[in-house]
Amino acid sequence: MQAGGKILYTNIGNPHSVGQKPLTWPRQVMALVDLPAEVGVDHPAAATLFPADAIARAKEIQAALGGGTGAYSHSKGNTLFRHDVVEFIQNRDNLPSDPESIFLTNGASTGISHILTTVISGPNDGCMIPIPQYPIYSATLAMLNGAQVPYNLDESKGWSCTLSGLEESLAAAKAKGITTKAFVIINPGNPTGQVLDESSLQDVCSFCAKHGLVLLADEVYQENVYTDAKKFVSCKKAASDAGVLDKLQMASFHSTSKGIFGECGRRGGYMELTGFNPEVVDEIYKLASSSLCSGLAGQVMTSLMCRGPSPGDASYDSHELEKATIFNSLKNRAKIVAEGLNAIDGFTCNPAEGAMYVFPRVEIPAGAIAAAKAAGTSPDGLYAMSLLEETGICVVPASGFGQEEGRVGFRTTFLPSSEEMQEGVKKMKEHHEMFVKRYQ
Amino acid sequence: MQAGGKILYTNIGNPHSVGQKPLTWPRQVMALVDLPAEVGVDHPAAATLFPADAIARAKEIQAALGGGTGAYSHSKGNTLFRHDVVEFIQNRDNLPSDPESIFLTNGASTGISHILTTVISGPNDGCMIPIPQYPIYSATLAMLNGAQVPYNLDESKGWSCTLSGLEESLAAAKAKGITTKAFVIINPGNPTGQVLDESSLQDVCSFCAKHGLVLLADEVYQENVYTDAKKFVSCKKAASDAGVLDKLQMASFHSTSKGIFGECGRRGGYMELTGFNPEVVDEIYKLASSSLCSGLAGQVMTSLMCRGPSPGDASYDSHELEKATIFNSLKNRAKIVAEGLNAIDGFTCNPAEGAMYVFPRVEIPAGAIAAAKAAGTSPDGLYAMSLLEETGICVVPASGFGQEEGRVGFRTTFLPSSEEMQEGVKKMKEHHEMFVKRYQ
Repeated sequence: MQAGGKILYTNIGNPHSVGQKPLTWPRQVMALVDLPAEVGVDHPAAATLFPADAIARAKEIQAALGGGTGAYSHSKGNTLFRHDVVEFIQNRDNLPSDPESIFLTNGASTGISHILTTVISGPNDGCMIPIPQYPIYSATLAMLNGAQVPYNLDESKGWSCTLSGLEESLAAAKAKGITTKAFVIINPGNPTGQVLDESSLQDVCSFCAKHGLVLLADEVYQENVYTDAKKFVSCKKAASDAGVLDKLQMASFHSTSKGIFGECGRRGGYMELTGFNPEVVDEIYKLASSSLCSGLAGQVMTSLMCRGPSPGDASYDSHELEKATIFNSLKNRAKIVAEGLNAIDGFTCNPAEGAMYVFPRVEIPAGAIAAAKAAGTSPDGLYAMSLLEETGICVVPASGFGQEEGRVGFRTTFLPSSEEMQEGVKKMKEHHEMFVKRYQ
Repeated sequence: MQAGGKILYTNIGNPHSVGQKPLTWPRQVMALVDLPAEVGVDHPAAATLFPADAIARAKEIQAALGGGTGAYSHSKGNTLFRHDVVEFIQNRDNLPSDPESIFLTNGASTGISHILTTVISGPNDGCMIPIPQYPIYSATLAMLNGAQVPYNLDESKGWSCTLSGLEESLAAAKAKGITTKAFVIINPGNPTGQVLDESSLQDVCSFCAKHGLVLLADEVYQENVYTDAKKFVSCKKAASDAGVLDKLQMASFHSTSKGIFGECGRRGGYMELTGFNPEVVDEIYKLASSSLCSGLAGQVMTSLMCRGPSPGDASYDSHELEKATIFNSLKNRAKIVAEGLNAIDGFTCNPAEGAMYVFPRVEIPAGAIAAAKAAGTSPDGLYAMSLLEETGICVVPASGFGQEEGRVGFRTTFLPSSEEMQEGVKKMKEHHEMFVKRYQ
């Protein structure tokens, strides 16, 4: 790296760490909820610092919490907040939801861990995961000593999957003596950025229902859809439209860390269970109880994500404007980066229809592959290290997510500012030309 | 229960849920840290709502956080906060501590889970746990498919243990083919409320060092010592004084949930590792990374617990007064409850030297034991249910924590107000007389 160079972190979906500002109203409500009433909502000067609707919401939450944010809540989360989640889901899907099936979690990762822990009992229990995948799935399966059953996303068809491909993966696992118990879908995709259409989702739901697989629907990027041609459809909606909702065991995950909030440090999120036997829900509830409850800060933030200010409230317009500004900027950056990378000779990059990432494929000379082998690293490990050293841009080698044999690439976010991302794409181009020359 | 009766919850160590007020200054700092600067620390009216030292500390924390509380931190926790923990430990023990060995965790439970996950690999791996114990240990061992190796605490000697008893437990496990890997000590005790003296702690440390057992030192009640005859000594200090600190692998746990803060909903805490190989620390770090980081709200609160206002600061006197008021009230209630229960004919109750609990033994008629058997419950399950139904007091049957064969009892907190606890003890006496009469 150039001496004194600054590192551009595009390796992790951590928006606030690279300049995204928190939304004002949710932070105001949170602060008021945490303050003892006499130095907060009931302080005579409260209205000089806080808008009326933040004070009103904080009072509502404090009344619902009883013991405040300092007390353990119910292990599934506070009832008011679970009702807020239910309203959000019902408005989204136009399908009923039940607060008893909602678990507030520390981000999505706790929920994922609870479900896999419940479903996977040993080395012959398998879970289908997309390739490429987000590593929390492979890591959790490794910890549980379970088997990965990979299914491929087709880069040439916008990172989609086919029913025949799923059946083949399942049969291949069966031939190895693995009983497949669960199926992971990530939509919008991480690291791949695609948004699946409803017909693909219906296929996946029908496939899982047919084979009795527990569906883990990782939908944490549901608010991050940038293409005008598509919209987010939940697996619950797709399962209902496919007529299999009552035949399917499903856990869907959402988080305050992504979307427009980007509140990663809050560790907030929820999981909705549908179609499980009550005994299984009880087991999952026991698991949740073993760490008492999820953090109250995350619970509060989840409720504020699901229920913002209402039209006419003091903060409604400014809250909506802040959200639109962040969303439009993300949309703009998604385009800058995907188009910019695709224009580099030797790069192929699907558009970022959603999420916060692109996952370009990079052609590198045979000399680089040999050099990587000699150095005991993967070709894209060598490439990413070179990019970091030469330009200060930090990306994740694609091999960390899994990819087809012989492919080379990386994942980059588009979370830093538009200016930084434009400059970053330019540097990636210069670096690629230099890298190709070096190893030719 | 009498119609319309209110339930007195003494079943869980959740202080704010039964009326303990949060400390003002930490909540003020937290609120300011969460507020965007322009509507928080930099707002012209901030000083009308917040004391100067809360504003100053919030500014210091915001500067250290960079991306604020909305960004993921380092998976071990933010560096400033880990330094605050190190200072706290060094002041307590007069021994060096290293920020690289500190992990900020979601309460103590995440840390406990990380250590047991690292150490216990299957049904032949054992962990020594006290009987009675706090059920997170048995539950986590069950989830990991590991073996409980019980060692008894002697009720007649203030819930202490002996070296010969420990050796016997270890040998008994070995005879069953179990390789014991770890040892849990809870001091001050939960559910038993004893404070161990340094010589017992030194014995435990030497025992673990001699047998190569990883010591889990559950020290979440270290600020809750009520007897003037004893003070809290950390296992780290005891190991050092016994000359085995460099021969011992130890993880010690602390939490914002107990002590004087009682901030359970915050899910804050830390774990300090000593004596582990760097490779093992790396494995634990990987585990911590799999859920990205602990919640920032818990991290902030942990730092404020470890470093309060300094003498001369605007909030110093009020913060110390609030802490002393809570502490003295807990100390008073510990006495009321232990003495009150001990005075009941048929009750034996060791003093609550520390923690938040007493664990009385109760003599019940043979008829009650037969009735419990007939009803398919444990004798103390029957007793606790009767107590709840007749008086509205909710306690936990002692069998939930493990106890010597034939013993009957329960755990009660002394967290509700002094008036409520006095009334509660009175009702427990009346209930006991009624219960004995019913089954005689």
